This record gives sequence, C-alpha cells and structure tokens, in this order.
Amino acid sequence: MNYCSACAAPVELRIPDGDNLPRHVCGSCNTIHYTNPKVVVGCIPEWGDTILLCRRAIEPRYGYWTLPAGFLEDYETTIEGAARETREEALADVDIAELYTLINLPQINQVYVMFRGSLRERKYGAGEESLEARLCREEDIPWDEIAFPVVEQTLKLYFRDRRRGRFGTYTGDITRPADKWRDYQVRFLNGNGD
Amino acid sequence: MNYCSACAAPVELRIPDGDNLPRHVCGSCNTIHYTNPKVVVGCIPEWGDTILLCRRAIEPRYGYWTLPAGFLEDYETTIEGAARETREEALADVDIAELYTLINLPQINQVYVMFRGSLRERKYGAGEESLEARLCREEDIPWDEIAFPVVEQTLKLYFRDRRRGRFGTYTGDITRPADKWRDYQVRFLNGNGD
Repeated sequence: MNYCSACAAPVELRIPDGDNLPRHVCGSCNTIHYTNPKVVVGCIPEWGDTILLCRRAIEPRYGYWTLPAGFLEDYETTIEGAARETREEALADVDIAELYTLINLPQINQVYVMFRGSLRERKYGAGEESLEARLCREEDIPWDEIAFPVVEQTLKLYFRDRRRGRFGTYTGDITRPADKWRDYQVRFLNGNGD
Repeated sequence: MNYCSACAAPVELRIPDGDNLPRHVCGSCNTIHYTNPKVVVGCIPEWGDTILLCRRAIEPRYGYWTLPAGFLEDYETTIEGAARETREEALADVDIAELYTLINLPQINQVYVMFRGSLRERKYGAGEESLEARLCREEDIPWDEIAFPVVEQTLKLYFRDRRRGRFGTYTGDITRPADKWRDYQVRFLNGNGD
C-alpha cells in the first residue's frame, strides 16, 4: 500500500495512538487502513461412499487435485460461500451439513474453513477454474497429487473419521519451512480432536 | 474506496474479466482491489465454575458485558488471536482448549470464531478497552446487559452444554432486521449441533 484509498495522499506505516501494531495511516486525512487475514471456505462434497474432487485449471498447483474452496466474499456467510465455491468449481449443488476443519495458515495469512456437504444429485462437472471433477472412493484418492497440505490434512482426517463412524470438528495450524512444500508441520488443538 | 492504493489513480467499480462480482479496479495500473469479511476471534475464559467477562470501555455498546474478542491480525492464527485478545481486554493468560462457535454475521461482514479457554491463574483485570473484568457464575451473568447477540448465543450454548456435561462445536448465522437490536434471528447447522 502506497497511497490512501480515500484521498490519494501518500500513506505512512506507523503505530497509531492507542494501538500496538504498525498500520498504513494516511498523512493527509488520517484514515487508518487495517488489513486482516482472508477466509477460504470450501467443502467435502459427499455422494454415497465417494467424495467429489476437482483438478485445478489455475495456478498455483495447476493440474493438482483439491476440494472445492475459495475466498469468502463480502457479506456472505461461510456456509453460503462453501456452497457457492462447490457450484463454481465443480458445477455441483451441495447441502452444507457440518463444520469439519478450521485450519490456520499463518504464513500465507489465510484461515481455511471446510465443511462436510451432501451432493443433492449425482451431477457435477468442471467449472471455469477446474480441468475436471471426479467422484473418488478412498482407494482412488490421488494422494501424491493433492494441491495443498490443508486439503491433504482435511482428507486424512475425513477418511479416518469415516472408518471409525464418527466425525469430529478439528482446529489447528499448518506451517512450513520456506521452500519446502511437502515438509509441513501440523498442530491440532487436543490431539486431532480426540 | 476512491483511489488505487498502489498508484493513486481513480478506481472504478466493475466486474473484471472472468469474475462475477463488481470489484474496485484501478483505471491506470489495473490492480484489482478485493475486499473480504473480517474474522473476530475470542474466547470463553474458564476458571472453575466461573467464566471471565469484560465490561466494554469503548463504543459500540459502551458499558455492556462481553467476552474478550477482537479482529484477527495479519499473520496471526485464530488460536493466537483469541489468547491475545484475552490478554489485552482482560489482562488474563489463557490456554485455548477447543473451538466452540463459528458464527457468521453477514450484515456486518464478520465471522466470529470463539474458543473455550482455561485461565492459567486467577489473575485478571481491566485492559484498555474494558471498564472492568469479572469472574461470573452462571447465576451472575448479566443477561440483560450483554453487548452483542453473538456473545449472548455463545454463552447460552455454553451453559446448556456445561449442564449436560458435553461441549459441542456450533456453526451458524445471526441476522437481524435493521434497527431492531434485540430482535435477531439465529440459525445453526444441525439444530444447534445436537
């Protein structure tokens, strides 16, 4: 941020009175421009013993598999957003059933909120940001071609829970050393919710 | 938003190519300025059969009681943020234990993420944004002086769960008609998580 979005004067990075973190403050109109992490919402769309995955048609991770998910929009609920992303990326209608994982990705300033959802009918396809969408059984999950650690972790928890017949809600952090994509650390509250 | 924060040229509100919502787009450098809902993080700080409430020293709802909570900061996890807000507003150290409620407030473009937490010691006080902090038993909760519906709902669920000896995780929306503060609607996924 270089300029004030309210009045176009240059901004300076300083700690406002009564605050304890540096903010971009306008030198002319004194507007304080706060920034905050973004929420990514998505779901695990279920159909019988399969779930719906999408193969990404965009960077990052072009060609890799993911769950439908994307940035929460202004004035939208996380529940609405998860259903919208599933429509957009997998051309599928879901009923959002339960919160499943809330995972912080502090290094990229995102909070992932993933739900479980039920496909309303066996109807899906590749949205604009997807190369294809596919219903996968557990044994068909392309574990070596999953786009993001947060999706891998969510899927691992999901299939473990499905085998034991009980779904929890899991909250944790994923962090990783710079430049080591696969070498990430996961820490959940309460040992994976058990 | 009137001006581009990157180059100070005027922005226009239009739907970018390949998008489906209007965004502020710079007419000069073409930067798209996305905006998104903000996350508010906080906790229910527990000490034996009491919980710690704060009385607000700031608007809105000056003088009303609330749980420690505030905006999630850049590059912070929701777990860290909940503990930080408790330190700042109630001068208390908590261990964040579990996610408790995730409540969408679409009308004010916020997502509340509230945890249960344990006070590390019986030590607390009024932070800069609080008039006082107080450990309350259920029978001492000032129900008519709770600052926000989202706090009231979280506390109602909490004491119900405590009486039955089992804590869930609850996800839902709170909406309300304009100008009717107390007349709000609550809708949880799965009938309050039961």
